Amino acid sequence: MLHGGGPTAVLNASLAGVVEACRAEPSIAALYGAERGVEGLLGDAIVDLFAEDPGLWEDIARAPGSALGSSRRRITDADYEQMLATLDRLGVAWVLLNGGNGTMEMALGLHHAARTAGANLTVVGIPKTIDNDLAGTDHTPGYASAGRFFASCLRDVGADNRALPGITVLEVLGRNAGWLAAASTLARRGPEDPPHLTYFPERPLPFDSLAADVERVYRKLGRVVVSVCEGQLDANGEPFGADVRVSSRAPLALNLAHTLAQRLTSALKIPARSEKPGLFGRSCAALASETDRIEARNCGAAAVRGALAGRGGYMVSIQRNPGLSYNPSYNFTPLEDVAGRERLFPEHWLPAAPEDDLPAFRAWALPITGEIPSYKNLRGVRIF
Amino acid sequence: MLHGGGPTAVLNASLAGVVEACRAEPSIAALYGAERGVEGLLGDAIVDLFAEDPGLWEDIARAPGSALGSSRRRITDADYEQMLATLDRLGVAWVLLNGGNGTMEMALGLHHAARTAGANLTVVGIPKTIDNDLAGTDHTPGYASAGRFFASCLRDVGADNRALPGITVLEVLGRNAGWLAAASTLARRGPEDPPHLTYFPERPLPFDSLAADVERVYRKLGRVVVSVCEGQLDANGEPFGADVRVSSRAPLALNLAHTLAQRLTSALKIPARSEKPGLFGRSCAALASETDRIEARNCGAAAVRGALAGRGGYMVSIQRNPGLSYNPSYNFTPLEDVAGRERLFPEHWLPAAPEDDLPAFRAWALPITGEIPSYKNLRGVRIF
Repeated sequence: MLHGGGPTAVLNASLAGVVEACRAEPSIAALYGAERGVEGLLGDAIVDLFAEDPGLWEDIARAPGSALGSSRRRITDADYEQMLATLDRLGVAWVLLNGGNGTMEMALGLHHAARTAGANLTVVGIPKTIDNDLAGTDHTPGYASAGRFFASCLRDVGADNRALPGITVLEVLGRNAGWLAAASTLARRGPEDPPHLTYFPERPLPFDSLAADVERVYRKLGRVVVSVCEGQLDANGEPFGADVRVSSRAPLALNLAHTLAQRLTSALKIPARSEKPGLFGRSCAALASETDRIEARNCGAAAVRGALAGRGGYMVSIQRNPGLSYNPSYNFTPLEDVAGRERLFPEHWLPAAPEDDLPAFRAWALPITGEIPSYKNLRGVRIF
Repeated sequence: MLHGGGPTAVLNASLAGVVEACRAEPSIAALYGAERGVEGLLGDAIVDLFAEDPGLWEDIARAPGSALGSSRRRITDADYEQMLATLDRLGVAWVLLNGGNGTMEMALGLHHAARTAGANLTVVGIPKTIDNDLAGTDHTPGYASAGRFFASCLRDVGADNRALPGITVLEVLGRNAGWLAAASTLARRGPEDPPHLTYFPERPLPFDSLAADVERVYRKLGRVVVSVCEGQLDANGEPFGADVRVSSRAPLALNLAHTLAQRLTSALKIPARSEKPGLFGRSCAALASETDRIEARNCGAAAVRGALAGRGGYMVSIQRNPGLSYNPSYNFTPLEDVAGRERLFPEHWLPAAPEDDLPAFRAWALPITGEIPSYKNLRGVRIF
């Protein structure tokens, strides 16, 4: 069992689901966890998960982060060989890898390496990412909790902005995919509710368009809350901001919201503030979705079932069954159909204008994030 | 009734307390609210608070922001004259002003102006500020909720940092006062828990000291979470950061955490990330303290009692009574003893080193923030 990539609020729930399912299965003699993900597997830092107090897992299941630790290490062919040697030495029959795009690529690589080496190893992936950009599943554990966080955050920061009006630029996680930008609108009930403008990284954003949008809303409402994704690029496909980190996936402005707020202040002569709750967005336990917690746990348990059934080279996927009420089931998708793909926000759900509601997305998202209540306002009966 | 300054998560609870107390008092014929604080009073935007549905106030009491709106306007002598004329025209007998330092200065100014003009007007202040820097009260409504937010935030971001180790610089609100920096440590149980380093704006911070502290903790734990206050100044008393706003109170770097993270990355060759949940820190309803909500409401009710008793020129203050359990009462402090003063974090509670615990502060704070549970970790029994 090992973790890869950035943690979420419910990654540990999947781990608890794995442990629970393994303890319930008499044929499983031992369950090991690699500390700090693949680093632990390559560095012989392996722990016995059956040695933990069984009562601990309920607490672990509700804690953010990763109880085992994680890693962003990129794997080489030599790494795969070393991993296989270690797994063989330990007598491991199957490996579960819980992570996002990079981790599913590694799972597929390990699956192929085992096949090539003639090793009898079953590799099963467990999906995880707040960005919701994994292919082959209706959604990924972690996304609904981060979505609930940003919907609540935009609502509350919007209440503040309504009380003391101005321009607020709020930076939302999600890299190249607008799933969390979309989720940031879930507490909206009408055009006066925040965010007033929502931008999707799937579309380049000329600064002049942003400034014109902000000015238009400000003239109308006297205040503006802007939701912008961390991976937003400008008209030339370049990141806004002076400090840019180029990762394997895409360039990211490290000071995006701040830069946009400063540029809007200069362009419009209206004070703009920025807000950037990034790491808290993926770790906040208080705003996690209970449905997400349950599904993450179920994905862990499903992975154990898959491994026992010999589903090597597959990832657990969440399927939304037809019917009036939300009803998920847990299936398996070939890693070949997941690895190296990025699932962006659907083109046909993208709004025509940044002020627009997202009714189809909303109907899709609320069953997994849970309802996000909005606040009531005074009628405000003037005495003159 | 009017609001001043930045909203908190419980400012509306004080408003609900005022309305509730006024509705219960048959001698009070009308209660008006000024929209957008003093702007509404100067601009004749006054609403009838008895015209609202009485059932609404329970909802309003739990909403962040300010249902009436607020303002940061600085008041001139001519403004006071106009305010008095409007209040006289409306037949207003007393005015309640709910806010922080600036608002209490305005309350005192209005009190003096009324005396000078021979007007029969009772001015009472209701304390409010997340920074907890108001004199004359044990603490201010709004502080405990923001404290609970930052304690939870540092705990959860710390769980993330433990899973994927590195340097994380988290910027905490509080201006020149370290009350919220101190509160950010409330989920700590030991030296391995975040924040590992906490800095107080009451002391200048040479960058070299910060870098040496961060490197020392990183060598020991392999990770570091730094809690730094938005108003932190460097060895020369200057703000860190390229973008600085000079307010009436103090200079503030708008990109403090980002700047420190970039400089630490350069100096130590270890990747550092920054996090800045500012507006959400003062508005997050989900992490507000229930004790704070109750006290804010009680402060509103106490202000009405004070006004009826002719306590003009006073501010409601929270007093902590002696005894084994926390037991507050609501008294009155002369505005003369509040206005223009800034209550910094007590010298004798400041830690000797940035790694140190704050036992005296902790005992003082937990009754108002509520307990902040920490997370359990695996024992981690290695198989080799």
